[in-house]
This record gives sequence, C-alpha cells and structure tokens, in this order.
Amino acid sequence: MIARLYIITLVLLCGMLGIWVAPLHAEVDRERLLTEAGIYGTFAAFVLDDEWGRLEPSTRIARLATLKGVVEQHRENVAIDVYLLRGLSDQADLLFRIHAMELRDTQEFLLDLQSSQFGKHLTGIKAMHGLTKKPNYVPGFPDQMKTDLKTPSEAGEKPYAIVIPIKKSAEWWELEQEKRTALMQEHTAVTLPFLKTVKRKLYHSGGLDDVDFITYFETSNLEDFHGLMLSLQRVKEFGYTRQFGNPLLLGTVQSLDQVIEVLAQ
Amino acid sequence: MIARLYIITLVLLCGMLGIWVAPLHAEVDRERLLTEAGIYGTFAAFVLDDEWGRLEPSTRIARLATLKGVVEQHRENVAIDVYLLRGLSDQADLLFRIHAMELRDTQEFLLDLQSSQFGKHLTGIKAMHGLTKKPNYVPGFPDQMKTDLKTPSEAGEKPYAIVIPIKKSAEWWELEQEKRTALMQEHTAVTLPFLKTVKRKLYHSGGLDDVDFITYFETSNLEDFHGLMLSLQRVKEFGYTRQFGNPLLLGTVQSLDQVIEVLAQ
Amino acid sequence: MIARLYIITLVLLCGMLGIWVAPLHAEVDRERLLTEAGIYGTFAAFVLDDEWGRLEPSTRIARLATLKGVVEQHRENVAIDVYLLRGLSDQADLLFRIHAMELRDTQEFLLDLQSSQFGKHLTGIKAMHGLTKKPNYVPGFPDQMKTDLKTPSEAGEKPYAIVIPIKKSAEWWELEQEKRTALMQEHTAVTLPFLKTVKRKLYHSGGLDDVDFITYFETSNLEDFHGLMLSLQRVKEFGYTRQFGNPLLLGTVQSLDQVIEVLAQ
Amino acid sequence: MIARLYIITLVLLCGMLGIWVAPLHAEVDRERLLTEAGIYGTFAAFVLDDEWGRLEPSTRIARLATLKGVVEQHRENVAIDVYLLRGLSDQADLLFRIHAMELRDTQEFLLDLQSSQFGKHLTGIKAMHGLTKKPNYVPGFPDQMKTDLKTPSEAGEKPYAIVIPIKKSAEWWELEQEKRTALMQEHTAVTLPFLKTVKRKLYHSGGLDDVDFITYFETSNLEDFHGLMLSLQRVKEFGYTRQFGNPLLLGTVQSLDQVIEVLAQ
Amino acid sequence: MIARLYIITLVLLCGMLGIWVAPLHAEVDRERLLTEAGIYGTFAAFVLDDEWGRLEPSTRIARLATLKGVVEQHRENVAIDVYLLRGLSDQADLLFRIHAMELRDTQEFLLDLQSSQFGKHLTGIKAMHGLTKKPNYVPGFPDQMKTDLKTPSEAGEKPYAIVIPIKKSAEWWELEQEKRTALMQEHTAVTLPFLKTVKRKLYHSGGLDDVDFITYFETSNLEDFHGLMLSLQRVKEFGYTRQFGNPLLLGTVQSLDQVIEVLAQ
Repeated sequence: MIARLYIITLVLLCGMLGIWVAPLHAEVDRERLLTEAGIYGTFAAFVLDDEWGRLEPSTRIARLATLKGVVEQHRENVAIDVYLLRGLSDQADLLFRIHAMELRDTQEFLLDLQSSQFGKHLTGIKAMHGLTKKPNYVPGFPDQMKTDLKTPSEAGEKPYAIVIPIKKSAEWWELEQEKRTALMQEHTAVTLPFLKTVKRKLYHSGGLDDVDFITYFETSNLEDFHGLMLSLQRVKEFGYTRQFGNPLLLGTVQSLDQVIEVLAQ
Repeated sequence: MIARLYIITLVLLCGMLGIWVAPLHAEVDRERLLTEAGIYGTFAAFVLDDEWGRLEPSTRIARLATLKGVVEQHRENVAIDVYLLRGLSDQADLLFRIHAMELRDTQEFLLDLQSSQFGKHLTGIKAMHGLTKKPNYVPGFPDQMKTDLKTPSEAGEKPYAIVIPIKKSAEWWELEQEKRTALMQEHTAVTLPFLKTVKRKLYHSGGLDDVDFITYFETSNLEDFHGLMLSLQRVKEFGYTRQFGNPLLLGTVQSLDQVIEVLAQ
Repeated sequence: MIARLYIITLVLLCGMLGIWVAPLHAEVDRERLLTEAGIYGTFAAFVLDDEWGRLEPSTRIARLATLKGVVEQHRENVAIDVYLLRGLSDQADLLFRIHAMELRDTQEFLLDLQSSQFGKHLTGIKAMHGLTKKPNYVPGFPDQMKTDLKTPSEAGEKPYAIVIPIKKSAEWWELEQEKRTALMQEHTAVTLPFLKTVKRKLYHSGGLDDVDFITYFETSNLEDFHGLMLSLQRVKEFGYTRQFGNPLLLGTVQSLDQVIEVLAQ
Repeated sequence: MIARLYIITLVLLCGMLGIWVAPLHAEVDRERLLTEAGIYGTFAAFVLDDEWGRLEPSTRIARLATLKGVVEQHRENVAIDVYLLRGLSDQADLLFRIHAMELRDTQEFLLDLQSSQFGKHLTGIKAMHGLTKKPNYVPGFPDQMKTDLKTPSEAGEKPYAIVIPIKKSAEWWELEQEKRTALMQEHTAVTLPFLKTVKRKLYHSGGLDDVDFITYFETSNLEDFHGLMLSLQRVKEFGYTRQFGNPLLLGTVQSLDQVIEVLAQ
Repeated sequence: MIARLYIITLVLLCGMLGIWVAPLHAEVDRERLLTEAGIYGTFAAFVLDDEWGRLEPSTRIARLATLKGVVEQHRENVAIDVYLLRGLSDQADLLFRIHAMELRDTQEFLLDLQSSQFGKHLTGIKAMHGLTKKPNYVPGFPDQMKTDLKTPSEAGEKPYAIVIPIKKSAEWWELEQEKRTALMQEHTAVTLPFLKTVKRKLYHSGGLDDVDFITYFETSNLEDFHGLMLSLQRVKEFGYTRQFGNPLLLGTVQSLDQVIEVLAQ
C-alpha cells in the first residue's frame, strides 16, 4: 500500500514536471458517452516492447507520467477506460476502450498516446470500432421480456472484462427482419438469468472494421459468464455466426492508477 | 497554429537544403487521373518503424522534408493522396493512394519514397492496385436510376476515408451478365439514399493483386457510412462475396502538410 | 548428478540473496485445486528470447533464481505445474499450468513472472483458460461404464504431457442433450481401454478464450496415447469437431528444479 | 544516364577486385532452358533488410558487385531472370526466376547468393518450383485452336511480369481426362484474343511445393492482362480452383544492371 | 575439394579442443531405428539467424564444431539425418530427421543442439513427430500387390528429400476399415510404377502433432516424384485429404560434413 502511494506520488511529480503535464481539464460527459446511442466506441489493444522491462524503475515512472498526462488531457473530449490483459490474453498487454462523439477525437488521443514517451513502448495490435445504437429487435419483443431486460446488474465490483468481436454469415443478413427478431428473442430469453451478474454493452461495427459487432462484458463471476456463453451457443441464432472472438480478449478492469502501479514494477 | 507554421517552415527549409529538393514541377492532370477510365489506382499502406519515435525532433523534420520532396517531384507523373491510419487501423500508420497512367510510374514514386531518408523508416505492409473502368452494369439500369446515380455528393469536408477490398466467389463470375445486372441493380438501389453523404470510387483489381475490387469511400458521417454497409449486406449480391475487407482500412484524409505536422511530433 | 546439485545450490543461494527471495509460504491446497469442480486452469506457453542463450552461465543462474522465487511466492494462492516444450513443440519452449480459485490470482502470478529478471526473457505466445466442472454426460451413462470410469491410472512416472484445445461446431451445440449424451457415450466407450496408461483432465473454456475445451493428458506411453487419439477420431462425435489442437502442445513433465537445470545450461 | 554508367562501372570495378570476381563463363543454353520440356523453374522472392537502406552508397555498390558476381558465375549452369517487385507487391522486393536442368543447380546458386555480401541483406520469403511439360490437353483440341495457339506474342518490350500460383480442388483431379480436356478447351478459347499482348508460361508444381501450377505472364498492357484474367474467371474450369494467387506477384522485368542501379540508390 | 578437406579438418580440430568434444561413442542401432515399427521419427526444421552470415569464418567454423559435437554425442541414443532446405524451401534452412525409441531422447538431443554455440543461431520453426507402424491395409491387399510392394528402390544416390504432412477429413476416419482398405488399394496401385525411383517412409502422427501422417520421400528423379504425386491426386482417397503439405518441405540429403562445409562459407 505504501509502495503504491509512493509510485503514484512519483508519477504525479514527474507528470507535473514533464512536458505532458495535465492542466485542469473539464471532463467530457462520460455518463452520456457510456449510455447514449450514436456514440463511437473504440477498443485499442497494445503490447509493450521488450525494452520496457529493462528500463530503470525511475525511467519507467517518468514515462508512465506521460501516459497519465495524455489520458488526463484527452478526458476533455473522450471517455477512456483501461484494462490489463497481460497474463490473461496472449494477444496484448493493455486495452483501452474509448468512447467519443467522433472517431477523429479518438484518433487524436491515440496519436498523442503513441507519440508520448510511454507510447513509444507500445505496439498497436488490434483496433476495433463500433457505434452504439438503439436496440434493433427489442421493440418486437413481448412486454414481459422488455420489462425483464430492464433488470439492473448487481452493484459491486466487476473485476473481469471480456471483449468478443462477432461476424454474422451472409445468410443472417438475408433473413427477413421478422425472422431475425424471432431468433433474437430466443437469444435474449436465455440471457435473462445472467442480467444480474454479467453487464453487457453492444457496438455495431459494419463498415468500421472487419467484424459486424463488438460485444463487451463485465462480470465478477466468470463461471456465470461461461454459463451465459454456453446458453448463447445453444440457440439457433448462433448457427448464423461466422466469427465469434478470434480474438476474444479477457482482462481485468483497472483504474489508470492501478495500471500505472502494475507497469511501474 | 504557430507550431504548425513553424514545422512546415522548417520542413520547407530542410527540403530546400536537402538532396531531394523539389524544383518547380508541372503537375500531372490530377483531375483527369481521378475521374477517367483506364487509370491505375494504387493503395500502398505503411507502418513506421520503432526508431522513428526515438529520433530527435530536428532529425524527424529533416527526414519529413525528404517525404515532401519525393511527393513534389513525382506529382509531375502521378496524383498522390495521403491518409493517416494510425489509431484507427491496426494494420498500418500511413496510406498513399496513387493514380497513374502506368503502374511503372507508381512504382518509381514508391521506390523513391522508400529510398528517401523518411522512407527508410517505412515498412510496406499492403499494396493493392486497381483499374478504373466505365460502369459495367449501369447501361442496363432503368433511366430513373441512371439519373439518380448522377446525384453529386454534398460539398464540404469529408474527413474519413475507408478502403474495402472485395473478392467475389467463383459462382458470381459464372452468372450470366443479365443475372448479374439484376443483382447489381438491387445493390445499387439501396445505395441511392447515401449518395449525398458518402462519396464512392471503384477500382477493378483482377490480375493486379489478390482481390477482385477495391472500393474507396469518403464521408463526413460514419454513421451514414455504417448504414450504407448494412444495406449492402442485406441484398442478394452480398451472398456472392468471398472477401469483404480483411483488411478494411479506416483513416482520415489529410493534406501532406497535415501528415508532416502529425509525424513531426 | 553433481552438476545438477551444483546448479540447484547456486540457484538457491542466488535466490536467498536476491530480491525475490521466497519466505516460508503456506502452500495452497493443491490437491483440492487439482481435483474439484469450479477451479480455473490456465495454460500459459512462452518462448525464450535469443538473448537468453548468450547470457553468462552465472547470470542465467541468477535469473533462474527469480523464476524459483516467483513460483514459490505464488504457491500460496495457486497451484503451478511446469513443462518443457522445447524440442517437442515448435510453438513454445516452456508451459505453465496454473490452477486457481480466481483468474485474478493467476494473472498476478503471471504478471510477477513476466516482470521478474527471468520473465524479461519470456514472450507469451499462448494463454488458454478453462473451468473444471462436474461431468456433463456421465449421469446418463450405464452403471457399468460409470464403474469403469473410476479405474485409476497406473502408478509411476508419466513423463509426457499433451494439451489439445478443442472447438465444436455450431451443429454440436444445437443437438439435444440426449443426442449428445449418446454420442459422448460412444466416445467414452473407446477411451476405457486407455484409462490405465493415459491420465486425462478436462477444462471448459467457452467465453474464457477462443476454444470450447482444453483437454490435458499425461502418459508414459505415447504409442498408447496415439492409439487413444485414433479411437477418438473414429467415433461419430468427432465429426462435430471444428478445431482439434492447432496448436497441440507436446512436452515433458518437469519439476521446477529440473527445468531450472535444463535452462541453466 | 551518366549516373547509371557510373554505378555500373563502379559495380564492375568492385566486382573485379572482390572475392566473387567472375571469370569468363560459358553461358548455359538459355534458349533451351526457356523453351524445352523437362526443365525446372524456380521463383524465389526476397525482401531486403532494413540495414540495406542505411548503408553508405559505396558499401552498397561493393555489395551489389557480389550480386553481379554470383549471377555471372552461375550463368554457366542456370538461366537467371530478375524482377523488381518493390512498390508493386507487398510480399517482396526482388524476384529471381531460375531455370535449370536440376534443382540442385538452382539450390547452389541460391546458396551462393544468400552467402554473398549482398545476400546477407536478403530474407527469402517465397520459393516455388515447377517443371515445364509438353501441353497436357492441346492434343485433344480442334486443329484451328492448335493453329491459333501458335500465334506469337507481339515483339517489343513487355515491362510487367505477373506470377500466379494455382491450386485445383480434389474434384478437378478426379474428373475424367476427357472432361478436363473439354473444360480446358473452353478455358483456352477465351485466352486466344490475348495471345498477342500477353506472353504466358506454365510450370507444373505438384509435389515440388504447396501449389499445383505456377503461371507466369509478361505484358506491356496491364489492362489487357486484366481482361484476360476476367475472361478466365468466367469459364467453368475456374470453379475447380482452390487457390489463385495468394500471393499474386506483380513486378517489372529488369536487367541485372537495372536492378543494381535501382538498389544502389 | 581442398577447401572442403580444410574446413572439415578445422572443424575437427575445433571440436577436439572445444567443450563439446565427442569421445568415442557406441552408435545406436541405426538400421533398426530406420526399419522397425514402434519407432518415433521427428522432423525438426530450423532457420539460421541473420547474425550467422556476419560471423568471421573462423568463428563460424568453431561453432559448427559444436554442431558436430552434439550430433556425435547423441548418436549413441538416436539416429540423426540432416538435410539442406535453404534455397529450395522458403520455410527453413536446415532439417533434422531423428529416429528414437523414446521422444525424450529426441528432446534431449534437440535441447543440447539449441543450447550449443551453433544452436544459438537456430530458430525452430517446425517440429513434427510420427510413429512407425506395421502396414494397416497391406494385409487386405491381393497377393500380387503384396509381392510388388517388396520391389526395392534402385541403388545409387537419391539426393532429394521431400516431407509432406497429411491430415485426413473426419469423413475418412468414419469409413469402415473395409472401405478404407479398398481406397488404399487403389492408392497403392498407382504408386507401384514409382517404387524403383522414389523411396517412401510413413509416420503416424495422430496425437503427437497437428497432422495425421508425415510422408517422407527420397528420389534422384524429381520428375518421377512429380508423376507419383499427380497419380496420387487422381485416386478417390485423395478426396478425403484435408491438408497435404502446408508446408511441403523440399531439400537435399546431405552428410553432416557436407552441411558443415556449406554453412562454413
């Protein structure tokens, strides 16, 4: 705990002295970005280079201050979440989720991130974008299901995050809206028992990257999440899925300070 | 803004002193290259090496001057557009679109680019070529559709560019011309509502690379573009598509000076 | 033998002097983690970098002491097994199997491993996770088969370990439970003759990575194991398999001290 | 032009002083190797390493002299053609086509190439082999077609070369010879209009690498070549193709001196 | 020839002085390992790193002595063959084929190889294992075919070696033994004309790596080998093949001294 405070203090000090020092910024309306339709969500995953591990601790701390600086600076325009993938995903070490009104704002954050002293140690290995939209099929669902869908997820920490990109087959897109609604109703029915322990968010990617959807989950109970996935594999709609994961990204939800603490070691 | 002018001035100064100093060139007939049939379009995407980020700012500026020099020098023969992919595409950092009467001219530009002081930091990761042609199917479309297709796209900045390579199945190529025309008419009908906000250009690639078509889009409204993509996935012709994207390249349209400014930082 | 003792002594000495010196830890209930349901198993495979082979022997020994230290330290929370893949698998050099009550504990071990002096030479190339569960289909099997399944594997060293990730087709998941039970009964029947010489353990991966199951085997007789695989390929259930291996990981079971001895050379 | 002569002179001088100095060699019967059946053709594509671009011009010239030396030396045994892919193919920078009576002779050339001072900068990324054979299907074609097939390609420079590896499906190989002849007659018919502007050569690869055929083309008119490819996609035989290109290699035909000149810069 | 003797002498001298100096070893019963059933065959392919080409000749020779030392030392336990792939395969430079009673012995050889001074320049890119077994289908063949199969291959040098991994479809494994025997009889019939010029050996891989079989060939006549491959593609059994090659490895059979000579240059 003392070590933690020490690192954070050092990072702040470095940040205050460094070139990326963050002035007081008005924060973007994060709540709105995370809940409304018409928002762009970007998932950007990175690996740390080999050099990072060989840096002196003090250098690492100074460079992490530039990470903090860039994030603080862009919080004016975009909402930024950070996840630790290292150890749990073989694809990447760090994941940023960025919500913005315009992808240009997201690009500016990522450009600044990559040209920061910290960012020079990052290699981007995955960038996926999606758009939040009003539910497509819910209006056609029975009233009881509509009510059930409003069940809030349980309060409390949800330390695990999972990102699963999805691509449907050409056959799916050729189905009538009515047929798709019926299939999605069956799909939705099996997810109801998991609403309390697994939080979900859907992004529509068609034309923004090489998948159709990005599904994002948070949970405190991976066994429940596994149960949800099994249930979804067993409904008919799953037969219209051409890509599910590949890569599936699994990591832990972290505050920026927690990530800095881990990377400082 | 002052920083920007400062960088551009430095780049120009460096360029004037450097080996690649660009004399006054007569520019190629860019309008013609971008509108006529029988023109070769090349999409060449590059990643910057790790060393770039570690260069002194003054060295970076000197090297960017060689980029400017090479581009200026070849504008006599080829039309060059440049896009910033970094942050939005995980495939590459920079994209050049080159239009030429002969692919040899394009190769000469790219050879000079890669052997310039700036180019030594680039690794080519994708090169796709296509030929512009008169529309294949439009002559068989109804008159109203022919008229609708002439709708110009709205004036104003279109900051986003998307490149989607496409490969059709063997079944597609075996269809009768009449059948293909009918399918393309359905395909075209759903694109009409998007003509105003999404600008399109088609390149025929068969035999020039490993795809059949390169589709290029510019838009100021990515949500509209997403809508266009959804509409295209839902027509029957989409069932004859074997590759759509993979990679889809998403970036922002930039002037050469804007790219230089970003890369100088 | 003398060389072996010498290396282990040196490693211990280095460990006692080094920063990762392991105090006396209470060990996690390893037996429980390896036998109960509801446990998370992680398979993390790594390659050693080129630099490792060029280090001075004394440096190598000092760094291996940090490996020993990290493993000892985390044995409080997780059960750790280690395998030597080098020479037998082209994918990786080292494999860790970690059992934990929570994947967060596994992540913490792997984070500490990768930031140790030894871990800086490792690149993670595969991380797969699975959950142990009560048998799905056994309750529906005939009593004789249930009894047969209790046959313990022969005592004695089982030097070879094989890890095979498996993904079933969408068709599999759409089958009725009864149909699947019948197919799994046929599958199980052909495995009975191999229970004595091949030890098996099953992990359920849905939602935790990009496969459905991880199957783990230990054997002293690879010819028998090959026979088991042939038998499994010949039952109907195999027709519902979309991925089998890719990668299959083959290695030898090693104690931590044995691995240290090999890597010290 | 003066620069060109200067470089070539330097290369020759370096070559005369260097270790690979080429004595007067009797050249292999190139005409025979390029026209007869029973000859092995190898397509070996290479990328230049990053270091090449950073070498001093004089070092580059000295190393290119070793390229010239190796090629001259082996021209006794094998016929060597060289192509510049850089800028047009994202796969590689340089392509060698080697014709030999025995693949051992080709291997010896490539071994000497790779161990030369120049070759140390090359990484082999693709090696494909094929055998020239008497036409399989032509004997069953109508006389008029046989006559048409003798049309020589137009004289004059054909600056573009395209290499397309092809793999047929299992269904193709199971067809009766008669059926395959009929399909190949249809295939051949659509190629006749392109005989003048596109020169073709076929290599049979079964068992020598992972494709069935390597098709090689030279043309001065890429639009015509594109037309030929479209025609070939539309005949029934194309439905039996499992791999077409992947990679397709597009480059420009160069003399060794031209390549040396380009690489010297 | 003189150069060759000189290098071998130097290598031997270095070997005699070096740490890996090979004492007189009793050689394993190579004949038995290469002919009996129940033997494990491993195909391990490696690429040489870039540094190798930049070493001083004397350093190269000293390091090659360690290769010779490791091979000599392990010839007590395993039978080792070596092949030169460079120039003919784009996958790797060197291939070792190792026969052993136990894969642990093979692993020990490969571990020692990779930790030798020479081995530090190698990167393993492919490791495949198979088991030799008594013929599965021959007992069901007609007597004439059984006799024909005993035709020995022609004496004399067979300089080319080809390795083709094979994976059959799930449908293949579901066929009745009788049906498979009939298909294999047709398969075998077309191979009879090639028995004299192409030597074959089959390894069963199920469960040991990601393929079902490794087929190994030696020939002095690649045109004949190509003919054999064409014949095999045309029988019905080929329709049950899911992977054939990918990679196919083509190289030349070399003595250890020949390989050392080539790599010394």
